[in-house]
Amino acid sequence: MASNSNLITKKHHPENLESPCAALDSYLTPNELFYIRNHFEAPRIDVKFWRLTVSGAVQRARDFTYDDLLAMPSRRIVATLECAGNARAFLGGSTPGIDWHLGAVGNAEWRGVPLSLVLAEVGFQHDAQEVVLQGADAGAIDKEPKTPGSIPFARSLPLAKALHDDVLLAYSMNGRELPEAHGFPVRAIVPGWYGMASVKWLIHLLICREPFAGYFQTFEYSHWERIEGNPTLAPLGPGEVKTEIVRPSSNERLKAGDVYLIRGSSWAGESHVASVSVSVDGGRCWNSAELLDPPQPYCWVRWQYPWNIPADVPSATLMARATDENGRVQPLEHAPEERHYSVHHVLPVTVHIE
Amino acid sequence: MASNSNLITKKHHPENLESPCAALDSYLTPNELFYIRNHFEAPRIDVKFWRLTVSGAVQRARDFTYDDLLAMPSRRIVATLECAGNARAFLGGSTPGIDWHLGAVGNAEWRGVPLSLVLAEVGFQHDAQEVVLQGADAGAIDKEPKTPGSIPFARSLPLAKALHDDVLLAYSMNGRELPEAHGFPVRAIVPGWYGMASVKWLIHLLICREPFAGYFQTFEYSHWERIEGNPTLAPLGPGEVKTEIVRPSSNERLKAGDVYLIRGSSWAGESHVASVSVSVDGGRCWNSAELLDPPQPYCWVRWQYPWNIPADVPSATLMARATDENGRVQPLEHAPEERHYSVHHVLPVTVHIE
Repeated sequence: MASNSNLITKKHHPENLESPCAALDSYLTPNELFYIRNHFEAPRIDVKFWRLTVSGAVQRARDFTYDDLLAMPSRRIVATLECAGNARAFLGGSTPGIDWHLGAVGNAEWRGVPLSLVLAEVGFQHDAQEVVLQGADAGAIDKEPKTPGSIPFARSLPLAKALHDDVLLAYSMNGRELPEAHGFPVRAIVPGWYGMASVKWLIHLLICREPFAGYFQTFEYSHWERIEGNPTLAPLGPGEVKTEIVRPSSNERLKAGDVYLIRGSSWAGESHVASVSVSVDGGRCWNSAELLDPPQPYCWVRWQYPWNIPADVPSATLMARATDENGRVQPLEHAPEERHYSVHHVLPVTVHIE
Repeated sequence: MASNSNLITKKHHPENLESPCAALDSYLTPNELFYIRNHFEAPRIDVKFWRLTVSGAVQRARDFTYDDLLAMPSRRIVATLECAGNARAFLGGSTPGIDWHLGAVGNAEWRGVPLSLVLAEVGFQHDAQEVVLQGADAGAIDKEPKTPGSIPFARSLPLAKALHDDVLLAYSMNGRELPEAHGFPVRAIVPGWYGMASVKWLIHLLICREPFAGYFQTFEYSHWERIEGNPTLAPLGPGEVKTEIVRPSSNERLKAGDVYLIRGSSWAGESHVASVSVSVDGGRCWNSAELLDPPQPYCWVRWQYPWNIPADVPSATLMARATDENGRVQPLEHAPEERHYSVHHVLPVTVHIE
C-alpha cells in the first residue's frame, strides 16, 4: 500500500498514520488526510473473488458478492471515526499501544447497505445474541506469544446496535470508492462508536449465541466497569464527549494585543455536541465558543472563540471542553477505568505571549 | 507470614512457593509441604471481625460469621489442587508468569460448609447467573498500570458448579485449622478446577446477573476457545488429565541392570484417572503402570512401574501419561490455545545409564 505523504507515520509495520492536526479544521476529512489504523498488514482483496459470508445463528446462511451489496438499498451517513487510542500520547508514563497525538480522528460521508438489511436477508435464530464482524486482516500477536495461530481482527456488536439503521456495510467514502487502506471493498461503519468497531475488509458476519470475547475486545479495546465494586472487563463501544484545540498549537508564540481566533473540533459519540466552552486562563473562567457546524449525532462540530491576547502575562493555558445533549461534560483527568483508551479529558494548550 | 523452609521459593513478594517433587509421593500432602500461590501479599485476618458478605441477585442478603459457618452442616472432600501455571517452566521461550516446575500441586482433605447450603440460605433471584468468589487479597497489577485502584482477587463460578455439593467453604485442611497461607479463616474449595478457582481468604460472595469478567479470568487464567473458527477468550475452569514422574528426576544417573521403580502421580480434574501408561524408550512402546491408590474424582493417584534398566544404551527417555474415565488422553505437545496455562502434555524425563 502506498504511504500517503500527507499523513504522519506512527508505526511502519503495519502502517499506522495519523492526520495532521490542521485536518480537523475541515468538516469532511479528505480521504488522503484520513488517519489509518491497521492491526495487521493490510490485505489486498480482488473484488471478483470477494464474498461476505453470513453464518451462525441464522435462518438462511449465505454469501453476498460485491454486486449483491451494490444492488441493495443504500444509505448515506456522515460520521466521525476516532481511534480509541487517539490522544494516548498525552497520558504520559509507560503506556502500551501506539502513541497517537491528536490526529487519529476524521469525519467522512459513508455510503453503504444498512447492516440490518443484510441481517434481515439471513434471519436470526431465536438465540442469536451478537454479530461478530470479522475482517480479512489477521496475524500473530506480539504481546501474546501463545495464541492459536493467526488471530483475525474481529469485533462483536450487540443486536440492538447491529440492527440500528445507521450501521452500514460501507463501500464508499466521501463519494469515492472505499480506498484500500480504509477497507476496500467493504467495511463496517458503526457510527458513534470508537473506530475499532468499524471493521475494515469485512469477510464474515458471524451471528453468535453467546457473548464473543475475541482478542480485540478483551486484551485490547476494553475497559473496566464494576459489578458491586468488583472490576469487570467490558468491550469498548460508544465514544465519549471530546474536544481538540486545532489552533493554536502547544508552545506557539502569539503576539500580545492581537485578537486570535482559537479553533477546534468537538464530538460526542452517538450523541451530539450541545455546547463548547473555552478557558484562556487555565480553567478558572469558561466562555462559550461559537459552533460553526449544525450539531448532529455521530459528527464533530467545529467551533471558534476570539481571544484578546493579554499584554500582561508571558504565557497562557488554553482549554476547551464540550457538553453533549445529555449533559455529559468532559472530565479534567483521565480515568484509570479507561485503561489506555478513551482519552477524552480536557487537553490544555500552553502558548507564549510576546 | 513465616516462610516454610520445606518449600521452594519461586517468588518472594508476594510469596509463591512450590513443593519439592518428592511431596507428590505422599497421598495426602502435609500442610507444611503444600504449595503456596499468592497474587498479592497475604492478608492477616482477625476471625473475630471477619464476615462473609453475600449480596447481589439474592432474596436475603446477609453476612455470615465464622461461628455461623462452623454451626452449619459440614462435608469432607479429598481434592488435588493444582495451580493452572504448574509445569510452565517446561514451555520454554519467554513465557509470562511464575516459572513453576512440578510442585505447584498438592492433595489434601478439606472440610467445610457446602457453598450450596450458604446459597440456599440467601436464595437466588430469577436472573442470577454466576457466583463471584472474592478474597480479602487485593492490590495493584504490574502488567496493567492503568487499573481502577486496587484489584481484588476474585473468580466467578457458573451456578451449576457453585451449587454442586462438593464445592466447599473450607475451614479445615488435613484435619487442622486452615493455615493462614492457605486462606484462613475460610477459602473456597472448587474440586476438579484449577487452583485459582479455590479463592482464599473469602470475604464476599457476589451473585451477579451477567457474566463476570474480572482480571483473573480474562487477562489471567483464561484460554482460547473458538466460535466457528473465531478465537474467543474463556475463563479457565476444570483441570486436564495430567501426569508427573516423581522419580527418577531429569538427568539422574541410574545403574544398568538394576530394576528401578519409576513412580509418579496422575490426576484428571473433575474426572478420575482410569489408567497410566509408561514408556521407557521415548514414546515408542507404552506399558501399563500399577495404580497405588483407588481412583476417585478430583484426586490424584500414585502409580509405579518396575523398569529393567538396559545395559546397551547410555541414556533413556521416560514418559508417562494417563487416560481418564472419559477416555481423555494427555497430548504430546502443549496447545497454544491454552496460553501459558494448563501445561498437561507428556513431560519426558531423560536419565543417564552407567
